[in-house]
Amino acid sequence: MAEKPWVRMVTAQTPTNIAVIKYWGKRDETLILPVNDSISVTLDPAHLCTTTTVAVSSSFDQDRMWLNGKEISLSGGRFQNCLREIRARACDVEDEEKGIKIAKKDWEKLHVHIASFNNFPTAAGLASSAAGFACLVFALAKLMNAKEDNSELSAIARQGSGSACRSLFGGFVKWIMGKAEDGRDSLAVQLVDEKHWDELVIIIAVVCSRQKETSSTTGMRDSVETSLLLKHRAKEVVPKRITEMEEAIKTRDFESFAQLTCADSNQFHAVCLDTCPPIFYMNDTSHRIISCVEKWNRSEGTPQVAYTFDAGPNAVLIAHNRKAATQLLQKLLFCFPPSSDTDLNSYVIGDKSILKDAGIEDMKDVEALPPPPEIKDAQRSKGDVSYFICTKPGRGPVLLSDESQALLHPETGLPK
Amino acid sequence: MAEKPWVRMVTAQTPTNIAVIKYWGKRDETLILPVNDSISVTLDPAHLCTTTTVAVSSSFDQDRMWLNGKEISLSGGRFQNCLREIRARACDVEDEEKGIKIAKKDWEKLHVHIASFNNFPTAAGLASSAAGFACLVFALAKLMNAKEDNSELSAIARQGSGSACRSLFGGFVKWIMGKAEDGRDSLAVQLVDEKHWDELVIIIAVVCSRQKETSSTTGMRDSVETSLLLKHRAKEVVPKRITEMEEAIKTRDFESFAQLTCADSNQFHAVCLDTCPPIFYMNDTSHRIISCVEKWNRSEGTPQVAYTFDAGPNAVLIAHNRKAATQLLQKLLFCFPPSSDTDLNSYVIGDKSILKDAGIEDMKDVEALPPPPEIKDAQRSKGDVSYFICTKPGRGPVLLSDESQALLHPETGLPK
Repeated sequence: MAEKPWVRMVTAQTPTNIAVIKYWGKRDETLILPVNDSISVTLDPAHLCTTTTVAVSSSFDQDRMWLNGKEISLSGGRFQNCLREIRARACDVEDEEKGIKIAKKDWEKLHVHIASFNNFPTAAGLASSAAGFACLVFALAKLMNAKEDNSELSAIARQGSGSACRSLFGGFVKWIMGKAEDGRDSLAVQLVDEKHWDELVIIIAVVCSRQKETSSTTGMRDSVETSLLLKHRAKEVVPKRITEMEEAIKTRDFESFAQLTCADSNQFHAVCLDTCPPIFYMNDTSHRIISCVEKWNRSEGTPQVAYTFDAGPNAVLIAHNRKAATQLLQKLLFCFPPSSDTDLNSYVIGDKSILKDAGIEDMKDVEALPPPPEIKDAQRSKGDVSYFICTKPGRGPVLLSDESQALLHPETGLPK
Repeated sequence: MAEKPWVRMVTAQTPTNIAVIKYWGKRDETLILPVNDSISVTLDPAHLCTTTTVAVSSSFDQDRMWLNGKEISLSGGRFQNCLREIRARACDVEDEEKGIKIAKKDWEKLHVHIASFNNFPTAAGLASSAAGFACLVFALAKLMNAKEDNSELSAIARQGSGSACRSLFGGFVKWIMGKAEDGRDSLAVQLVDEKHWDELVIIIAVVCSRQKETSSTTGMRDSVETSLLLKHRAKEVVPKRITEMEEAIKTRDFESFAQLTCADSNQFHAVCLDTCPPIFYMNDTSHRIISCVEKWNRSEGTPQVAYTFDAGPNAVLIAHNRKAATQLLQKLLFCFPPSSDTDLNSYVIGDKSILKDAGIEDMKDVEALPPPPEIKDAQRSKGDVSYFICTKPGRGPVLLSDESQALLHPETGLPK
């Protein structure tokens, strides 16, 4: 080790992901081993991602973490599991420029600082823990010079948050449930990268909710213990859907993709309802969005848009292409216009070019939108949606080499 | 037959029923044969029933029917099936007093008039077709002197509306799915009469809804065709629940009764959600009512109230006894007070003595209700519930011999 105080830092950026074949139910609570395979699409980190800086220094006297600028406890088992697993894989590090040398055996005694930042609201139910744990594990692995590939790292991220394992890759990703009791074969693999199906466009409706949702950890446990339908789903329904979904993705068969995505989202929420006490993640606004998409898809004869909902009321809508996304946004803005005190610029965020394509520049254009012809007596209701995010499938984790993007100070190792 | 024009009339009253183990899915669409057994409780006809007068006269030149005073078409297959089946069982009728003699063979040529009236809003989603078809079949059978018992009649009512077969008895009723292809063994039997478990109190919350619901006929068909969970439910889950529910009813085991009733309602709605396109019968208000009951039941350690929802957002709440019903009404009126323009007298209807027991005489008493301690941050929202009906388990069909209660004129056979 160098003699004078030093700080070594790594900054990484990791995307969120949304499952199109859902993960719901653990067969092992501690190792986070699922009852079925799942498949997700990674979302463009330009609009939804976590940035994490990890730092090590001989001057640090304990492991510390800051999330969105606020210090949080690292004492939870899930953080400790990830830290322990990465430390066990640490290797020699030599930074000639800075004159730092860390031997493999030193990592056990060294402490780390972690700063993490989401470029989207943490509380909005947009899989922040998935991106967060993926980024933590990825950044720590690079800091500690662990040689494991992203699939091997995914099995560690999995122990922080199940769905985090799928954020180690871009494009479409499969989390293989595995069979081993120690969970070593329960990891993510990339099915196709983000360039394979690049015409897809994703619009997320962040839905207002009066209720606090059941945490997915609690919900899953209750479902495993009480739902008589979950076992049937995991054993009989999902395996077939996984095969069909892989084929639909490989061949870019949007019709099959949409049918499977919608059916699997609905079945996951059906299992939640079959749980005792029942869990309701979708609300009336979620139902209206589904109804809007279903009616349009039916009127077109072939699906234009797939919908999927995680453990909350937000809709993730995957449009076949840019044209479908443009029409979808028009329909959504007709049914869910912004409140009078919201400006359009903060109501549709992310890739705003979709808004431009839709011919919508200001509130007058929103007001002038025609009612979707396929919806009888289409009603407009303000205040049911907080905002929309326009995005697309995106890439996996990357290292940010530009030190100005680091969240920790290069000399103190404390938040900037 | 008598020579001068005559009218022979029969008036009957038949209750509605609510399933506690649900019927969802037909294996034969025309005969209305279900995919599983179901069990219901009959509701007190004093608060929810259909009254039907059927008349026959040699002067009638066609079959006609009036529902709630308005003539409706009898051309539908379901009406025709019921009429045909009862006509096939008609026997000789002799009314010495009126000098009427109708021979068995005459019934084929004679026409009937039918007038039917619900003592509750038809559109409120309170099983009006169940009470309606049960009453039609029961009244026609008496008019035509058919010798069949109520179970045999239930197999005919079933062909009008599946759940109608369960309205031929009071108390708790089981609809046996049967095995025969012609449906002759798919009929209702009484498990226990209404006196067996007479401490139960039922409160129905008629919930406001912005949406038109999917008809249960369409919904069931879609579920049978598309839900991968329905088959598992019908084959693996329901048979066991039927046995357990029969036992719970026989032994008046409220804890098991409530657990089974709630779980089966939730599973039925889970199957609806697993249907393509998904069907949502419950809305945010329904969810809030469930949450309210679940929290209370949990805080008490043992269930006080069971909930069940049919193909709509209305909650049917079955309280263990009068004390539980009184507390339930207080909690409901706290969470769902009447709108400013609604008076309490029309907001809580049916057996108003529950309201009195709850110490609520006017709006001031409603406003003074304490928040349920088991609900954190309990919110009060006006306008989500249209009204509450307080009732209890009730008796089966009866004949009304008092001619003043007939809905048709004794001389003309036309609506009074």
